Amino acid sequence: MNVTLRGRTEHFRTVTFDPATNSVRLVEQRLLPHEFKIVGTKNFRATAAAITDMIVRGAGAIGATAAYGLAQGALAFRGRDLGKFSAHIETVYQTLATARPTAVDPVNAMNDVRAAMRAGETVAEQQALALAAAEEFANEDARHCAEIGRHGAKLIRTGMRILTHCNAGWLAFVDIGSATAPLYAAQAQGKKFHVFCDETRPRSQGATLTAWELAQQKIPHQIIADNAAGHLMQRGEIDMVLVGSDRTLGRTGEVTNKIGTYTNAVLAARHKIPFYVAIPLSTIDWNLKRGFNIPIEDRHESEVLGAWGINKRGQRDYIRVANPTSGARNPGFDVTPAELITGIITPAGIFQPKELWKNRYKLEFAG
Amino acid sequence: MNVTLRGRTEHFRTVTFDPATNSVRLVEQRLLPHEFKIVGTKNFRATAAAITDMIVRGAGAIGATAAYGLAQGALAFRGRDLGKFSAHIETVYQTLATARPTAVDPVNAMNDVRAAMRAGETVAEQQALALAAAEEFANEDARHCAEIGRHGAKLIRTGMRILTHCNAGWLAFVDIGSATAPLYAAQAQGKKFHVFCDETRPRSQGATLTAWELAQQKIPHQIIADNAAGHLMQRGEIDMVLVGSDRTLGRTGEVTNKIGTYTNAVLAARHKIPFYVAIPLSTIDWNLKRGFNIPIEDRHESEVLGAWGINKRGQRDYIRVANPTSGARNPGFDVTPAELITGIITPAGIFQPKELWKNRYKLEFAG
Repeated sequence: MNVTLRGRTEHFRTVTFDPATNSVRLVEQRLLPHEFKIVGTKNFRATAAAITDMIVRGAGAIGATAAYGLAQGALAFRGRDLGKFSAHIETVYQTLATARPTAVDPVNAMNDVRAAMRAGETVAEQQALALAAAEEFANEDARHCAEIGRHGAKLIRTGMRILTHCNAGWLAFVDIGSATAPLYAAQAQGKKFHVFCDETRPRSQGATLTAWELAQQKIPHQIIADNAAGHLMQRGEIDMVLVGSDRTLGRTGEVTNKIGTYTNAVLAARHKIPFYVAIPLSTIDWNLKRGFNIPIEDRHESEVLGAWGINKRGQRDYIRVANPTSGARNPGFDVTPAELITGIITPAGIFQPKELWKNRYKLEFAG
Repeated sequence: MNVTLRGRTEHFRTVTFDPATNSVRLVEQRLLPHEFKIVGTKNFRATAAAITDMIVRGAGAIGATAAYGLAQGALAFRGRDLGKFSAHIETVYQTLATARPTAVDPVNAMNDVRAAMRAGETVAEQQALALAAAEEFANEDARHCAEIGRHGAKLIRTGMRILTHCNAGWLAFVDIGSATAPLYAAQAQGKKFHVFCDETRPRSQGATLTAWELAQQKIPHQIIADNAAGHLMQRGEIDMVLVGSDRTLGRTGEVTNKIGTYTNAVLAARHKIPFYVAIPLSTIDWNLKRGFNIPIEDRHESEVLGAWGINKRGQRDYIRVANPTSGARNPGFDVTPAELITGIITPAGIFQPKELWKNRYKLEFAG
């Protein structure tokens, strides 16, 4: 999406590849929203480290990063011995696959790349196929997000006030984003609307990343404390809720997303406000039978006990907010049941959550 | 309540008066939870400034501070001229009444003191009566909180996990607190339970003040992001919600309290978890007919855009968390309808919210 730097507006993707230097180029997300910077990784190990260290985060973005990382590793190989090349590729694959062990996107993306490489008969052919497949993976991610935008934009009318939670924006994908895609598409159609960004404690992705994205795209918005959503709904100031999903159960329509999503869904149901979830197809889990079985990651308590930001001297700093002799409980995600979800916006159209299963063939082959 | 300083446990009230130095002594709440310090105000103007600057906050605490401040002002008067004394008292009263213009507690408290002073025929008599009335106001505040505790403790059983929001603790009153009173009383009865403190963004009173109070009283507790309450309720990990109130409508049973209270009430109703509000009688408004008519203060956006805490060098600091080019919306309170409230715990007993009105004579004269 567009970013304006020193008065000049340019289009960026979250993840790209530079063949001239054989490097993966990433938006350094840990500096946002206070600084926008593109960093290059010199080799596949540095690319894996960028995933581990969260220079890049978000399902689509880390998938594309791993795909490019595999191509980067392949291209760095010198020689013609296919056996040695295969052993090298296995090392690259394992290094990138274990960069964030619980994420499935890097593995799925690299499996696509490896499958494409098999058509090559020489090292050089396989190297070229790896890069082409990685580029195709990234392009498909962006295309899917554009399709989410095309379908979702139909739900947005001028004058609407839309609540978002966390960041499922272009920074989490290669471009455009999932929950943000309908907003960007509606804006491109000339619709005027207002977005409330939930701060999204404890990591504040709404106040930092989503607010930064919307500011860059010049979409009118305000940040609110997560506590304020219920009050604004009660006073009739929210017309729609639009969030992303980390894992959607294809069998039940349940949605796992950032902690607090469930609370917003309960509030929206009480006030009869439409609650939409925008998802790329890769987040659909067709196997799991019950949302209650999804393991919820308990994250480090320091996230709840303090906050990261910029101090008065312009330096990045962590402050301890909470009582120093108290501990915290920090579940990272929650599960929203199908009954609270108005619709699921996918690249293949908008579905009732309970309709995902009967449309699974359409959804699995929508790419 | 008890505070342990350098290994020694002592009992403190939030507000006391020292006749020897004619000063109001206050817990300096802006330093908590990182430092516990008692400060004295030299004269009534300094006492008013302490209210304005939020050295002291909370309904009961600022009421008692104003009552003591009026006595302090009266005692500082030199001379026997009742006319001059009355004019002086009027200045003291106006100074303290305008220290926080929207708060009703300082005015109500000072009206009690002034009414008591009328029985005196000389300046000296009126001075003595002012101090006695201020002491009685403070004692009554503590007595009422103790009664809330006595009634509320009956609701708490060993093994319960109780959610609180914001701080309606002893720091907000002269002692004991309202929402915390049942906890302290149940603990004194030997009951064992666990408290989840909502962080309570944007000002984080739950993570700072309530957590500090519970840590000092050695009540097991954990801080959670406000976003986590819904998830914990869904997983069956919360048995009761207990909050305070800034203003309770006697006619409808609606409760105005810190932003986010309404959200917790909606979540509790969905999960059939009892939702209790503990209130001193002074917060009941017998006149207003509809909660929707309560003006909700829109506070400064800097509260939402950043956070206060202690940095790594041990200094108090503010950091900007949010995107620097985004603004915020910051409603300070919300209104919870009677239908979501299981019971209102008062010094005169526990009432259904809709029963307040028919019990108004009992409640008005419970003191």
